[in-house]
Amino acid sequence: MTFAQRLHTVQKKSNSLLCIGLDTDMKKIPKHLQSKKNGVLEFNKQIIESTKDLACAYKINFAFYEVMGKDGWTIIEKTRALIPSSILTIADAKRGDIGNSSGYYANAILHELNFDSITVAPYMGKDSVQPFLQDEKKGVFLLALTSNEGAFDFQYQQIGHRKLFEEVVAISQQWTTNENLGFVVGATKSTDIQSVRKLAPAAPFLVPGIGAQGGSIEDVVKYGCTSDGFGVLINASRSILYASNGKDFADAARNEAMKLRDEINFFRKRLIR
Amino acid sequence: MTFAQRLHTVQKKSNSLLCIGLDTDMKKIPKHLQSKKNGVLEFNKQIIESTKDLACAYKINFAFYEVMGKDGWTIIEKTRALIPSSILTIADAKRGDIGNSSGYYANAILHELNFDSITVAPYMGKDSVQPFLQDEKKGVFLLALTSNEGAFDFQYQQIGHRKLFEEVVAISQQWTTNENLGFVVGATKSTDIQSVRKLAPAAPFLVPGIGAQGGSIEDVVKYGCTSDGFGVLINASRSILYASNGKDFADAARNEAMKLRDEINFFRKRLIR
Repeated sequence: MTFAQRLHTVQKKSNSLLCIGLDTDMKKIPKHLQSKKNGVLEFNKQIIESTKDLACAYKINFAFYEVMGKDGWTIIEKTRALIPSSILTIADAKRGDIGNSSGYYANAILHELNFDSITVAPYMGKDSVQPFLQDEKKGVFLLALTSNEGAFDFQYQQIGHRKLFEEVVAISQQWTTNENLGFVVGATKSTDIQSVRKLAPAAPFLVPGIGAQGGSIEDVVKYGCTSDGFGVLINASRSILYASNGKDFADAARNEAMKLRDEINFFRKRLIR
Repeated sequence: MTFAQRLHTVQKKSNSLLCIGLDTDMKKIPKHLQSKKNGVLEFNKQIIESTKDLACAYKINFAFYEVMGKDGWTIIEKTRALIPSSILTIADAKRGDIGNSSGYYANAILHELNFDSITVAPYMGKDSVQPFLQDEKKGVFLLALTSNEGAFDFQYQQIGHRKLFEEVVAISQQWTTNENLGFVVGATKSTDIQSVRKLAPAAPFLVPGIGAQGGSIEDVVKYGCTSDGFGVLINASRSILYASNGKDFADAARNEAMKLRDEINFFRKRLIR
């Protein structure tokens, strides 16, 4: 089964397009866990326990773990192991290097750590991305249009009749026939999601930027979903993880995740009616 | 002292523009070390011992270590600690993410691991790069023109009167006044090194791609160096590390490093005559 098929199956079964971002910040978790040796892991464990029936994927942002050095790497390993196999995992690591180095990153993250997919930077082109695409079961989310301010520096630059992010989407699709190439498309640029969907009718989109960053769920569903109401993973991190900073954080996270899942499904129903 | 000033001082004192890439591959190190528990670290230790008077910098390619999981992270830490403070260190990690995530990567690599500089991917723009530029003593090598085949996919695309890699160089220089922004410029595109030098007259260039990848040392020095014969770090990895696969590997590495340093200096002398 290809990555795109796996995603479709998981989203159908869970009835959820919600991706929960485990951007776990030692300084933001509840006080009673900050003082514990395994506080971050314990926090992740409780978040996963309380939300696992509400999400189609968990995304682990490597920056938040690398800052803890080798302990961070261990927490990534252990957190990965806590995620049920019925839910997809995304290594938000934004790697990308010349061929043999990308091959090592792919091995490290998709095979040793056994993530189902990874975010990859496109700047170095085909041979920097292909090593991540070799196993059809494993997916790539290539950065196309990101949700930050800096997206305007290069991604919107005009190349012929296209913008750079459109060029990235158009060209990269020639790099694989494995149905495992998706794109990061920020929710903050909602009308542009439509142009990426036109260029890549079937590709999975990982969509950051709702909530704190201001993206609209309605627009993401309307412009990003495939016509059957699938194909996007809408990520939320802080709004779920830090819904409460007390001992009830896991329940609060569950409530917030449920609210988001339902809001997404509300707009999906409109779409497929 | 800014990163650019530190580099100039180190290159002058060592009389070397050679950067040695510690792309240490468990499967390529001599057999007698492959079987040892700390084989990779022992290999790095002997390479550093035998070449430290010949190089201005060591570059650690994170892909080769991440593939070893948390042990790899420990080897990075320990290898970093073996490099004398008179020589600069480059974390070849090609990171880049939205602002707060880049901040964590910067903290992890430039401060916790205490590298002097890091390679960064430009695709996500200003706020993804600036966190790495905040400390003037620490340097960034932003990917401009890479040495791989995939460089032609996006980096050469025409944007107005410039190519994308030229646009990256021109725009990113507005992001800091700290004299700590340099560029990765592949040796395989030697005539294009000249156009990057024109756009960034004083910036340090990290130049991969000589040797196995086919770049010419003469051209790199001619087109890349500043007029006083500094400003580039010419990287060599495999040709030095695996000059011999026997017990004499460290001596063979020294001979190869010396040959490269001298060849670079031969063309530098021509330049400043």
